[in-house]
Amino acid sequence: MRKIEHIGIAVADLEKSNALFEKLLGKANFKTETVEGEGVETSFFQVGETKIELLQATRPDSPIAKYLEKKSEGVHHIAFDVEDIHAEVGRLKEAGFEILNETPKQGADNKLVVFLHPRSTNGVLVELCQGE
Amino acid sequence: MRKIEHIGIAVADLEKSNALFEKLLGKANFKTETVEGEGVETSFFQVGETKIELLQATRPDSPIAKYLEKKSEGVHHIAFDVEDIHAEVGRLKEAGFEILNETPKQGADNKLVVFLHPRSTNGVLVELCQGE
Repeated sequence: MRKIEHIGIAVADLEKSNALFEKLLGKANFKTETVEGEGVETSFFQVGETKIELLQATRPDSPIAKYLEKKSEGVHHIAFDVEDIHAEVGRLKEAGFEILNETPKQGADNKLVVFLHPRSTNGVLVELCQGE
Repeated sequence: MRKIEHIGIAVADLEKSNALFEKLLGKANFKTETVEGEGVETSFFQVGETKIELLQATRPDSPIAKYLEKKSEGVHHIAFDVEDIHAEVGRLKEAGFEILNETPKQGADNKLVVFLHPRSTNGVLVELCQGE
């Protein structure tokens, strides 16, 4: 766990939220990206070494659509940058954490990602990501 | 907004959550601190330039106690490090954000802090903090 790679925030209307975060952070997003596999359109802002990732669903079965149905807009997940995602998954599984996908999958920003179930992590959806 | 100073996580049992985050992050917390004014006991972990701040209520009228009643354990707020908190409050008020306390108050970790209402920030409770 080398740093907080990004904080994912679920939003209903990406265009509106982009404008809002631009005002809040005092600078524009630096990219947008659609991740077909997850059914999300994303927008990234840089703050220090961490990114803010806004997430809008692109289809009704997207995890973000389901999240917004059950909860509401707000922090969706915290992603930690790891050096060796396979080693970290092994370590965390051994320590009793519930791994949602043991085989890393392709996430936004050209990362390999693994999620931990929030019921094993104090209600926080934790993402591990191994970078570019 | 220079960096993510910390991510605040509401927990029901600080001792249990401390042990959990120690396993998750692979290292121990570096301090605990009680903030009487907010009715919270906190525990800090360092990850890169950002801290994870676990928050347990110390009394029933604590904002954290109320949060746990309405919601459940999980991410409570995101704190941004700012250079000049008075200037940032002015800028954000002008931009239409709802400021919860216009006069900065004493937070944990010897910071001056101001909160923005989540209804003006996409469901995210935002803290500004000016450091030590």
